[in-house]
Formats: sequence, structure tokens, C-alpha cells
Amino acid sequence: MSNKSELKRVRALHQKKYREEEGVFLVQGVKLVIELLASGWPVEAIHATVTAAPHVRHPQLQIWPDYDVERMGTLEHGNEVVAVVKRPDRSQFAPLGIDELVLALDGIADPGNMGTLLRIADWFGVKRVLCSVDCVEEFNPKCVQASMGSIFRVELHRVHLPRMLDELRSAGVSLYMATMEGEPVFELELKRSGVLILGSESHGPSDEVRALKAQAISIPRVGGAESLNVAAAASALCMEFLRQRLAP
Amino acid sequence: MSNKSELKRVRALHQKKYREEEGVFLVQGVKLVIELLASGWPVEAIHATVTAAPHVRHPQLQIWPDYDVERMGTLEHGNEVVAVVKRPDRSQFAPLGIDELVLALDGIADPGNMGTLLRIADWFGVKRVLCSVDCVEEFNPKCVQASMGSIFRVELHRVHLPRMLDELRSAGVSLYMATMEGEPVFELELKRSGVLILGSESHGPSDEVRALKAQAISIPRVGGAESLNVAAAASALCMEFLRQRLAP
Repeated sequence: MSNKSELKRVRALHQKKYREEEGVFLVQGVKLVIELLASGWPVEAIHATVTAAPHVRHPQLQIWPDYDVERMGTLEHGNEVVAVVKRPDRSQFAPLGIDELVLALDGIADPGNMGTLLRIADWFGVKRVLCSVDCVEEFNPKCVQASMGSIFRVELHRVHLPRMLDELRSAGVSLYMATMEGEPVFELELKRSGVLILGSESHGPSDEVRALKAQAISIPRVGGAESLNVAAAASALCMEFLRQRLAP
Repeated sequence: MSNKSELKRVRALHQKKYREEEGVFLVQGVKLVIELLASGWPVEAIHATVTAAPHVRHPQLQIWPDYDVERMGTLEHGNEVVAVVKRPDRSQFAPLGIDELVLALDGIADPGNMGTLLRIADWFGVKRVLCSVDCVEEFNPKCVQASMGSIFRVELHRVHLPRMLDELRSAGVSLYMATMEGEPVFELELKRSGVLILGSESHGPSDEVRALKAQAISIPRVGGAESLNVAAAASALCMEFLRQRLAP
């Protein structure tokens, strides 16, 4: 492929439509591409400036003029490395393991939040995350960047969420849903295996998910803020799940 | 003042320099201005479109063409109300109350993070926040908007942080510092009154603050993420402070 057509192709991958058609996504920046290489995910190509190239050695590495790499990337400035990566197959969701906590994201709209949620999941040892079909695309460059590499470590499954949650419950899995009106989480003995459902930034879980009547849980509010953002809520709740899990 | 010069003045307040010179800041959007009016903070002027005006009644309300309000605001689009508000006097920091938790922010650079931290503080009942002189300006419009009104409820004091922390400790206040290498927070009995120090996004607390040798605390990491963002860390730690406080 000529240089020009490859440049054009990478730029097309800024758009969701072309990322989906080709089944690939972009990973940008030296730090994140190093994490990509460590992850073993299948890399199609790495395009780098001559300065960045020594840090991201790979059989598919191509060196480009700075100006071209700048145009390939989606970051506002400082694009040095842009990798084109194959999306993983996530068609199977195995039953929950013993003591496994799974997050379920329902209608998360902001790619920065989505990436931050993956990072939080990863920190707290959550290995799998479910998301509803209307969640923002996890391969959106803003999500990939915000995940700080957690996208390579946390398995994200895009599913028909109400149906999947219903099936999990039928299989004996405990469902917890974060809401403003739930039981104060400190007063509950949380199961060691379960799913924690987090709703959208603006209107919480969807009606279909609410209809499942999962155990509603909340973070006690002491002050005046009307709400916590979804990432802050996820972090606080994962903290309590972790504490109870580690408790002697 | 003519319409034109007032418009020019409000636009100048997009810049930190003019906000500081005049001792004012901007509050934007119907929801936030309603919170502003409820807070009792001294409003100098409210500029609104004819559509938004009925929601933000005030003696200093001025109605403007949509196009002018659009130019007064800093939001990318949808500017409907822009209020000019006097900054509060924060020259005095009273001793800590019984059972009072205070946050101390050291070098927070991103205005969105700063606002989110105020919102988290507010949720968890933290009424006062200290910040180092190099923290981003809390009256930056992005911070004001991200705080979702918590800026009116949480007292933020910009101080020489190492000196202030040293004084507080001399007065018997417990200092806790969030770091990657601290004691797992679940293993500590946290004091009911204390200061929780959170360092900058990129390099944690400054050397001067580290030199104070506060009790270092950490959120146990179970998974692969290298770090949590500062807001997620603040939320998780405030959660544990709150839990211990509420524990019977």
C-alpha cells in the first residue's frame, strides 16, 4: 500500500464507522503502545516518528515524518505513535468465577468516563465488564486513552444488558444496582460474587434494567452535592466491595 | 455602562488575569445559577437570554439577545445564562472542628479534576478544602462547572500548604497522605478528625509536603492498573473515612 493510502486509511479510523467495518482501533502515545505490546493483542501496524520508534519496536513498525504521524493521531498535539490494532473476539461470556465481581455499565455516554471506569475496574481487580449496546464505543480513541492501558487487561463485553443480567440472576448471581435511593452499602453484607450495575451519567439505569429489581445500593450522602459522577461512584462502591472481600 | 462595554467586560473574565483583578468569577447555565442564587453568594450581574431569564430572577438580571449571551459564556454551545459573582473572602481558616475531615489538594492542575474533587468532598460531607498555591484556579469556568454547585458549599482555602499542614499537625491534627506506597487504608483506624492530602495528577504530593511525613495511606491494588486518577482515589478514600466514621 502506498504511503498516501495508508495515511488516509488511518485517518479514516478516527471515525467509528470505519473502525467497525475494519474491526480495528487506534492506540496512541508511546506509553500506551508499550502497554499494548506487553498485552499481546494483535497489532496490524505501528506508525511512529523517528524519535518515538526505538521505544515501540515491532515487526510492523513503520517510520513516518512527524507531520504525517501528527495527522494520523487524534490527540490535539504530540502524536508520536499510532498503532492499528485488531479488536478481540468477545462473543462468549463464561459463567462467573468464585468470588468474581463484574461491573455492568448501562448507557454510559461519555468516552472519557468509559475509559476511566475500565481503569477503576482494573485497579480493583474486576476482570470483566458488561456494557449495554447503547454505551459509547469502547474503541473510541478518547476511551482507549482514558483507560490508560486497562482496556487491554479488562474484558469488556457489549451485550443485551437486561437479558444478560436476567440470565445471570437465573444462574444464581447476585445483582447490585447503584442508585440514589438504595440501601446504604455499609449496612449490607455484599456477596463475594456478583454484578454491580452502574447507570448512565444523566438518568441512571434504564427502565428495563430497573425492572430486574436488583438489590439497590447507595453511597451515603452526608453533604450537599446532588450526585456523584459515575466514575467517583464506581470507585467508592468498588472500594467497599473490596474491603468486605479482604475483611478477615 | 453601555451594552457593548459590559459584553466586553464579561468576555474579559474568561481570562484568569481579569477575574483576579476584579475579584469575581463566572457561573454559567440555568441549573448552576439557580444553585448560585440559593447559596446567597453576592451576585454582581446575571446576563440571560429571554428564554432563560424567568428561571433566574434577580435584581441584577439583564436580558440580552441570544447571540450576545452565547459570546459571554465559555461553554462550547448553549450559553443561556452567565452570572458575574464576587469571590468570597477566605483569608481565615478556623481550627478543625470535632470529627472534621478536611481535604488538602497539592498541585492539582486540571480544572475538571479540581471541580470534581469539590463535588466529591461535598458529597462526603467535607466542608473545607485546602489547596496549594500552585493548584489550578478554582474560579476557572471549567472547575466551577465541574463542581456542579459544590463550589458554593465547600470552603476552599488557597494556602502555603506545607506550612499550613505543619501548623495543623502542631495543633494535634492527624495528617494522612494518599500515596501508592502507603499502608493499606483498611488496616488503619482512621482518626475522626484529620486532613487527607491528595497529590497532583502526574507526580503526587510535592517534596515539601512529603517531608512532613504524614501517615501514608493507600487503596489496595488488586488488578493491573498502574494508578487511579485523583478523583477516583479521593472518592474511594473518602468512602473509607466515612465508613469508619459511621461504624457503630
